[in-house]
Amino acid sequence: MEERGMEEQGMEQMAAPKLTRKELEDRLRAEFPEMFHAMSGYLIEDVWYGGGLVRRRYDPTSLRPGGTVSGPTIMALADFTMYVAVLSAIGWVPLAVTTNLTINFLKRPAARDLLAQARLLKLGKRLAVGEVGIRSDGEEDLVAHVTSTYSIPPPVK
Amino acid sequence: MEERGMEEQGMEQMAAPKLTRKELEDRLRAEFPEMFHAMSGYLIEDVWYGGGLVRRRYDPTSLRPGGTVSGPTIMALADFTMYVAVLSAIGWVPLAVTTNLTINFLKRPAARDLLAQARLLKLGKRLAVGEVGIRSDGEEDLVAHVTSTYSIPPPVK
Amino acid sequence: MEERGMEEQGMEQMAAPKLTRKELEDRLRAEFPEMFHAMSGYLIEDVWYGGGLVRRRYDPTSLRPGGTVSGPTIMALADFTMYVAVLSAIGWVPLAVTTNLTINFLKRPAARDLLAQARLLKLGKRLAVGEVGIRSDGEEDLVAHVTSTYSIPPPVK
Amino acid sequence: MEERGMEEQGMEQMAAPKLTRKELEDRLRAEFPEMFHAMSGYLIEDVWYGGGLVRRRYDPTSLRPGGTVSGPTIMALADFTMYVAVLSAIGWVPLAVTTNLTINFLKRPAARDLLAQARLLKLGKRLAVGEVGIRSDGEEDLVAHVTSTYSIPPPVK
Repeated sequence: MEERGMEEQGMEQMAAPKLTRKELEDRLRAEFPEMFHAMSGYLIEDVWYGGGLVRRRYDPTSLRPGGTVSGPTIMALADFTMYVAVLSAIGWVPLAVTTNLTINFLKRPAARDLLAQARLLKLGKRLAVGEVGIRSDGEEDLVAHVTSTYSIPPPVK
Repeated sequence: MEERGMEEQGMEQMAAPKLTRKELEDRLRAEFPEMFHAMSGYLIEDVWYGGGLVRRRYDPTSLRPGGTVSGPTIMALADFTMYVAVLSAIGWVPLAVTTNLTINFLKRPAARDLLAQARLLKLGKRLAVGEVGIRSDGEEDLVAHVTSTYSIPPPVK
Repeated sequence: MEERGMEEQGMEQMAAPKLTRKELEDRLRAEFPEMFHAMSGYLIEDVWYGGGLVRRRYDPTSLRPGGTVSGPTIMALADFTMYVAVLSAIGWVPLAVTTNLTINFLKRPAARDLLAQARLLKLGKRLAVGEVGIRSDGEEDLVAHVTSTYSIPPPVK
Repeated sequence: MEERGMEEQGMEQMAAPKLTRKELEDRLRAEFPEMFHAMSGYLIEDVWYGGGLVRRRYDPTSLRPGGTVSGPTIMALADFTMYVAVLSAIGWVPLAVTTNLTINFLKRPAARDLLAQARLLKLGKRLAVGEVGIRSDGEEDLVAHVTSTYSIPPPVK
């Protein structure tokens, strides 16, 4: 067992995502217009099979005292990035819903963009489990770490 | 909302909160003006020692497809209500920060106000741990259940 | 142990459990003999629809330095008590499995029996979510608080 | 930002651990004799600054029906491996205690040894946060994923 490559294992990362970045953005824009408005700060930077990278633009109105990005802003970003990772692996199933999310806040984020990277740890028929690392743009240390479970609805017949 | 005993155990409930509802609202309004704007949907309904009850007004822009309130809206409400519970027990220490939050989403919320009730399970010198139950107004079943830890900064000397 | 209302809300508590305490013990003894050996310290004290109360006898070999019960002992007790609560509501479905468990350790347990009380927060077709409070026998404060999800296998046809 | 190397960042992995594998084993054996007995199935395979790799020998008595290793066995292994990772970074501070642990069970483990690998995500003065991946020996997929927080006692003066 090779020791320090936890993320190298698991999902087949060479596989193509079920939705390209462009397809995903078009779908989200068309079907979640209210969300998309609230979400105007989000930018899907990359999508691969079982994972995704999302940028959240710096927005002074989400600041907490001391100039940092608020916890709820980080949780929302993590949840959205996990959603992107789930859809990348199962295709457009918009009614996939979060059943569980655990976040550890690790470091006060800087007053700049956040980058969240999600990857699935497991993809079952009924549940997808993944983790998300969130960083301030240009920094190495994690601002927060999330694990989350999505429930996948049964296929429509 | 019938309170149903969640808060009957644990913290000494007869004790007065360190901040009244009015004091808490005034402080939040004065010191977190940006948050307060984002938070205009929140209404602190009750505060007691080690707990609080917060209403989140129904806001169509936070809806998900299918007419339900979004997960991030629920997470933000839970985090804020836990913050109220922590401050009720330690007084105005605005730099108390969330270190960990676990949420289980249990039921699709209705298109109406949400009510979140938090209570501390433990109040230590360095950490406060609590749980939050979130319901749609007028309903009994939980929409979501949260446990969360806040880190309490050392007293300034 | 005074039960203090944790289980007063949520599940229909007047309903009879799907398995009595006696039936549950007999089944566990017959079908999980290895576990039952390891589990000889467990005593199911009560079972109701959607909940249960389990005692873990004090066992010096599970002690940590300082004379307290070890974390893994508490986690195992919480997981077992949640299993009892799930079976009380769905009947004998031994292949129900834990998918997620979050524990907050709140207080150093005393060198005496532990009592764990579980109740379901949600019972769906595929998932059951519950919480467990663990106390040292005769004490009021929680030693630990757990939330946990069980996956319920589809019915055999 | 390079995308798929979540674990490459964070702890300085080139730094020497504060305790070697040998020192750690000697200390555990000397100071936790009861635990060490219960723990005779554990083998510390590697320790580095901020991380560790622990093997849990296959033990038929910890089996669940269907021949898999029990959930509590996996939780105990994860907790111990996280403890190794914490001590690797702060030295011998035996009273460091778990305050929070979240586990996602991902796959039924095989009837063979388990390997757990932990790494710290954050090392603060008061809290250490890490994650642990658990696999069946010789397999690639994760059996379980854990995030956990340890509280570090203040230095004795």
